[in-house]
Amino acid sequence: MPKQVNHEERKLIIAEATWKVIIERGIEGATVRSIADEANLSIGALRHYFTSQEELLIFAWELVKEKVTNRILAMYETDMSLDELLVRFCLELIPLHTQSRIEMTVWFHFISNVQYRHHFQQDDGILFGLSNVMEMLDTNGRLKPTIEIDDETETLYALVDGLAIHCMFTPDRLTKERIIQIIVKHVNRILLFPVKPETFIS
Amino acid sequence: MPKQVNHEERKLIIAEATWKVIIERGIEGATVRSIADEANLSIGALRHYFTSQEELLIFAWELVKEKVTNRILAMYETDMSLDELLVRFCLELIPLHTQSRIEMTVWFHFISNVQYRHHFQQDDGILFGLSNVMEMLDTNGRLKPTIEIDDETETLYALVDGLAIHCMFTPDRLTKERIIQIIVKHVNRILLFPVKPETFIS
Repeated sequence: MPKQVNHEERKLIIAEATWKVIIERGIEGATVRSIADEANLSIGALRHYFTSQEELLIFAWELVKEKVTNRILAMYETDMSLDELLVRFCLELIPLHTQSRIEMTVWFHFISNVQYRHHFQQDDGILFGLSNVMEMLDTNGRLKPTIEIDDETETLYALVDGLAIHCMFTPDRLTKERIIQIIVKHVNRILLFPVKPETFIS
Repeated sequence: MPKQVNHEERKLIIAEATWKVIIERGIEGATVRSIADEANLSIGALRHYFTSQEELLIFAWELVKEKVTNRILAMYETDMSLDELLVRFCLELIPLHTQSRIEMTVWFHFISNVQYRHHFQQDDGILFGLSNVMEMLDTNGRLKPTIEIDDETETLYALVDGLAIHCMFTPDRLTKERIIQIIVKHVNRILLFPVKPETFIS
């Protein structure tokens, strides 16, 4: 007897098929037909879950955001220090493993298509999350006294997204160790108590 | 009598038509037909200049790199200080005016399509150029003595590309003044003699 798949599970399977198609053919190649083929469904069956390509793409994009957000929120539940949390938050945004490379490829295609498809929200929530960590660090006296928090949040946000893009397009040049070294060195300019790169090399 | 247009001028006109089509419809929409329409040429006439879409897209991309490179090289010819050159080099890479927004949009579409079209060279030469300015600063004793030049070049490169992308997708949040403030503040961590933001607000 074939495994029963409920409505929500099927939507997830379709969203993952959508990612796969986007990675292989770009967002322009993510047609309803190619996604249905990838998910082993008829176009009719796919339309039962998503009535338009737009709706399907938005669901696939929201799922990327949700996965990243959930991994970051899980860090808040651990007993790591706020200083360590800041570095791990940044590292989570850089495509250093297969899953995050998939997510970033999808993210990249979505943001580069924002201008043509205004239905997609531009905001990925990263600046908000990073501001939040910086404020917690500040409240807990973990930042150097001279730090201007808005400036440093903006700088770190740009540094991390820049590293993410460079890591995605030139992975051979930017190894995980090198990324950790660059981020740790930078955050140690703003943290009162420096963190060590070794903490993050697992 | 209509203006005579030579072979090279015509190629430039076609490349600019290609940019326009890429900006309006994405790189996937940059078909030979749409570019020919935009340049007011027949497909046959266009094929006289470029035998394939691939060749045309590469020419349009090389033209973007050439325009940016020429603007940066022109800075070397002026009498500005090396410190000022570093900041102006960075600012040149951020889409703060119409021409650089067009170029960055084209650049963005090219790099996000690199994975699908391996004929395009990934390297935009920016890291090489930035390393060059950093080495000149170092040779001339303009960097703080504790600076590790490779780390700081990588950091600045990521910061600038991150700001460029954020500026492109959220131009309302990142004004020119804000970008200047962030870059000046960052480079003053590595420069022996600090630069002032006012120098760059024109």
